[in-house]
Amino acid sequence: MEYRFSDKVLSLQPSAIREILKMTSQPGMISFSAGNPAPDAFPVEQIRAITADILDKDPVAALQYSITEGYTPLRDAVKARLAGKNCFDPDRDDLIITSGGQQASELSCKIFLNEGDTLIAEEPSFIGCLNAFRSYNANLVGVEMDDEGMNAAKLEETVRTQPNVKLVYLIPNFQNPSGRCMSAKRRKEIYDLACKYDFCIIEDDPYGELRFAGEPIPSIKSLDTEGRVIYAGSFSKVISPGMRVGFVAADPKIIAKITVCKQVSDVHSNILAQMICHRLLTEYDFEAHLEHLREIYRRKYSIMAKAIEDNFPPEVEVTHPEGGLFIWCTLPEGSDMLAFVKRAIEHKVAVVPGTAFLEDESKSSRSFRMNFSTPTDEQLVKGCEILGKLLSE
Amino acid sequence: MEYRFSDKVLSLQPSAIREILKMTSQPGMISFSAGNPAPDAFPVEQIRAITADILDKDPVAALQYSITEGYTPLRDAVKARLAGKNCFDPDRDDLIITSGGQQASELSCKIFLNEGDTLIAEEPSFIGCLNAFRSYNANLVGVEMDDEGMNAAKLEETVRTQPNVKLVYLIPNFQNPSGRCMSAKRRKEIYDLACKYDFCIIEDDPYGELRFAGEPIPSIKSLDTEGRVIYAGSFSKVISPGMRVGFVAADPKIIAKITVCKQVSDVHSNILAQMICHRLLTEYDFEAHLEHLREIYRRKYSIMAKAIEDNFPPEVEVTHPEGGLFIWCTLPEGSDMLAFVKRAIEHKVAVVPGTAFLEDESKSSRSFRMNFSTPTDEQLVKGCEILGKLLSE
Repeated sequence: MEYRFSDKVLSLQPSAIREILKMTSQPGMISFSAGNPAPDAFPVEQIRAITADILDKDPVAALQYSITEGYTPLRDAVKARLAGKNCFDPDRDDLIITSGGQQASELSCKIFLNEGDTLIAEEPSFIGCLNAFRSYNANLVGVEMDDEGMNAAKLEETVRTQPNVKLVYLIPNFQNPSGRCMSAKRRKEIYDLACKYDFCIIEDDPYGELRFAGEPIPSIKSLDTEGRVIYAGSFSKVISPGMRVGFVAADPKIIAKITVCKQVSDVHSNILAQMICHRLLTEYDFEAHLEHLREIYRRKYSIMAKAIEDNFPPEVEVTHPEGGLFIWCTLPEGSDMLAFVKRAIEHKVAVVPGTAFLEDESKSSRSFRMNFSTPTDEQLVKGCEILGKLLSE
Repeated sequence: MEYRFSDKVLSLQPSAIREILKMTSQPGMISFSAGNPAPDAFPVEQIRAITADILDKDPVAALQYSITEGYTPLRDAVKARLAGKNCFDPDRDDLIITSGGQQASELSCKIFLNEGDTLIAEEPSFIGCLNAFRSYNANLVGVEMDDEGMNAAKLEETVRTQPNVKLVYLIPNFQNPSGRCMSAKRRKEIYDLACKYDFCIIEDDPYGELRFAGEPIPSIKSLDTEGRVIYAGSFSKVISPGMRVGFVAADPKIIAKITVCKQVSDVHSNILAQMICHRLLTEYDFEAHLEHLREIYRRKYSIMAKAIEDNFPPEVEVTHPEGGLFIWCTLPEGSDMLAFVKRAIEHKVAVVPGTAFLEDESKSSRSFRMNFSTPTDEQLVKGCEILGKLLSE
């Protein structure tokens, strides 16, 4: 039977990373292709104790329907936390709990974009959100990055020439896939463009808490005097991705629209998971937990960075992230990145081809993404040795 | 600041039920307006034991990222269960776990409808899904019901006159809000129309397991030889709505599109909740649990039905559901239903005005919905006494 699918989903494909991840389940495969937290990063003991206590004392609240906005004590705890970083102003913002950080970006797209309206993203950018924007038939346009983040002059040119630019999607901290951090100056420049050209910014910040070197840079949200920044965060990288708990802070008019759209989608996020996050935030030393995570990722990053330095030819450009989960490698001009990635998989090391992160996947790329959070220490070294040998050939 | 929201969400409002539910939190309010399972219907002991065991033996699997399609053992268990009811054919169907049953309907709408395409629903119908369809700017058209379900002749007329009818949304078992069950004959007539006029059917079945009287009627899915029926189910009414676990079975091409759209929305559903549902289905006597639920609702229904009979004037028409959670009452011609609902709330009894369930909420209705699963036995009697007194005035 031939189905009459909607225009917006006709050409939508599962993410290329998924296809690669399927191959990584082969025995003996070293996977640098995931974006998962390290297995030893989960606060298992605490979650066990909290869950038992909730199901002992308050089972009906954890199992019954709840409100779309989210579990009120968790909302309050997240608001307070964000207010401490100038990412939430109680007088001018509201906040809703989402089913993971990605739902925040997906719903922001839904509430703003008619089909054909323009959304601009960093090129490269996070494939999950790019696909979310595609699923609304957005006119998705990429703007190139340098080491300070999205090129502001190129952004301005793009805003001037593309139809109905309503949203710019940014991952300022330890960007996926590049690992880059946007400079304070660039954040200000892009925010000023938002005011000048009347667009809103989705500031997606799943990795902000995972800074293991250098100094924090104030968020774009903290610069926002006009209500143009939609700040999305997540507990996926700092508590558990399987729980699917994220949040979004923005002007109350924006949060009201997101709330209605979330209500018609999943009604509310899993309530037990929200209660667990709340208690981890308020009854445990959450800062100490974050410091523990940073310690893990600092160590894992330095193992991979050293193994790259020891094994990769100097012609391969490599980013030096100060946090997050990813390193971005770029082969010299004239290289065939896709052929290299295929050979790497044949030699049992999986990385993600850079083309997966482009607004137009048919464009060419000489880059690939490597993840250092999921592999074991031994895999980090061994995998880089294998890649280094292939690169030198 | 004036935001340039998308056309599809501009006029989208939070559900009217929500606004009523807010009032029901007033002290002393008897609420017949919810759709929640009875608090004593949750298998708390089992969930406690299963959760402790999972977090003891397999914490990383319960906390890490998982696959969009859902937890494989749960998918297999649900497929087997549905196959036993001829709602799943392993040779021709596929199945995905969703974040509650509503996500199945929402994503079905997204994958099929361009803005302006027509979706037909029973009038009245479930407000959550009506709002989901509105959120894609569907041309939402209601077709009236009788005691056997949606009027098939009116449906055919509507299909012939409306543009691009792609989907018909039905709740054949113990419909929300009417409590009615669609007859086997009507199911067949409507399925035949789907084949004749090339549309698909969303068969939403959250209440099918809650039959407390009469004989089960085969699903529309069980009649489906062409791949036209999208069967949506949920654990919300039989395990826990707070967990947000549902599922949808359909042709693999449809499931593939739903999977991509779910992936870009919430990546996957909460994994611990999926593991809990799996173990309740496979390691406990799930049939005995369902029988226990039916017992609870049979009793609660009969208390409310008797209280209605004892207290309501005979001019008020009342449905006699054989399952589910709702009774639908219709006032005599010339009555002002909204004025009655307001007075009822002033007298501390909340019911949901029928207008909330219309495709066009500005149309008039003489009906209101009453829920018997959530109130206590005493509240069921007391509330009906108060309503009866108001109705007689």
